[in-house]
Amino acid sequence: MLSKNTLKFIKSLQQKKIRKQEQLFFVEGSKNVTELLQSDYEVSQVLFTQQYGKGHAELLKRSNADIFEVSQTTLESVGSFQSNDAALAVAKSKPNTPIEMTSDEWVIALDDVKDPGNLGTIIRIADWYGIQKLLLSEESAEFYNPKVLHASMGSFTRVKVFYTDLKSQFEKAGLPIYGAFLEGESIYESKFGKGGIILMGNESNGISRELESSVTHKITIPRFGKAESLNVAVATAIFCDNIKRSSK
Amino acid sequence: MLSKNTLKFIKSLQQKKIRKQEQLFFVEGSKNVTELLQSDYEVSQVLFTQQYGKGHAELLKRSNADIFEVSQTTLESVGSFQSNDAALAVAKSKPNTPIEMTSDEWVIALDDVKDPGNLGTIIRIADWYGIQKLLLSEESAEFYNPKVLHASMGSFTRVKVFYTDLKSQFEKAGLPIYGAFLEGESIYESKFGKGGIILMGNESNGISRELESSVTHKITIPRFGKAESLNVAVATAIFCDNIKRSSK
Repeated sequence: MLSKNTLKFIKSLQQKKIRKQEQLFFVEGSKNVTELLQSDYEVSQVLFTQQYGKGHAELLKRSNADIFEVSQTTLESVGSFQSNDAALAVAKSKPNTPIEMTSDEWVIALDDVKDPGNLGTIIRIADWYGIQKLLLSEESAEFYNPKVLHASMGSFTRVKVFYTDLKSQFEKAGLPIYGAFLEGESIYESKFGKGGIILMGNESNGISRELESSVTHKITIPRFGKAESLNVAVATAIFCDNIKRSSK
Repeated sequence: MLSKNTLKFIKSLQQKKIRKQEQLFFVEGSKNVTELLQSDYEVSQVLFTQQYGKGHAELLKRSNADIFEVSQTTLESVGSFQSNDAALAVAKSKPNTPIEMTSDEWVIALDDVKDPGNLGTIIRIADWYGIQKLLLSEESAEFYNPKVLHASMGSFTRVKVFYTDLKSQFEKAGLPIYGAFLEGESIYESKFGKGGIILMGNESNGISRELESSVTHKITIPRFGKAESLNVAVATAIFCDNIKRSSK
């Protein structure tokens, strides 16, 4: 039976502090819960509506999680979605583990990208372009924030993230670092190798002074109109697209 | 003097119904208010903090609007922002006027893009790539929704939008229509002319069956990883970028 205390506990995972302390998080909605159940995450509980249960009976049966059929109202009372007629699942978060970088693959590094929606969208973009590794500065949005996971549309299950001091990582890696600047070489003219680090800056301030000196290639997305800048997730997508098309 | 009734009235413009009825809207934050004051919009009121006033004295003086120095608390009490230490301005909305389309320019058409953040981001992208005309299906998000204007980061002042029945517009225009589909010709291989219509579909359902038959070129953004799809604003940016780079 699903107790009131369990529901209260799941709801408390909306707070970052509790997520860190318990090393647990939750995801909501059909797409994310289904992707989570198909991933290597350790899922402890799944709450789902009758309708979701019908469509995903096999997946739920195969899971080692405790499963509970609940009402839509219950899902909405514990989760962060205004409307959720599908499911919510609790899983164990992964430890913050260094990622290995080699010269023949691409890694995205984010310098204080703070908006959870932006981080989630960037994770989805990385996954679309086959980039599985992200380096995040300590001040970046938290990976297990429900808004990040939601915006990632399930792609969070396929990327590795490492929160770290970017400066020292860059020094250790010794790889080419392509940084997004408003003044740099046109991305249409740039030659990209087989791999390296794509560095994107904070929403308001761009790439910090401290990291600017680590950048080996300053790259610009050409502008044809008058907008002052592009959203950081949009700019990341254009970087990935140009890099991948040039290596095709 | 700024009366309580005026504040109440401005606050009521958070509702779409009132915006439509009064043909007025508001924008918030330094960037959007400044861009609005520099545009051809008819601004009726500007509420601003002492700090914003100091930095924009000339601009405020040149305006025909009623201007009021207020506290940050007042700004936050009438507007939609959680935090606003700069300004809020009320302006007259523009009538829904047909846009002319010629064969040597690009127009973005949106088939039921419902999320205000997506619409605002697409407007910012259009403005970056020098695309000034947007055709929107009647069911698309409302241009003057505060979330749309906010996400546009001032670019809303430089685009023309026309809410209309897309099907009949497409028939009238007789232009090439490039539609974003998951299965089509690779955007890397596509030949783009000097102009045409870029058609993007709804967040969940893509381009509707009804409009699919109007599409003259089905185009796909190549995928290298496993994400099921890209966010519609991100996909729009990649379309614009590929089209503009090919015509450079």
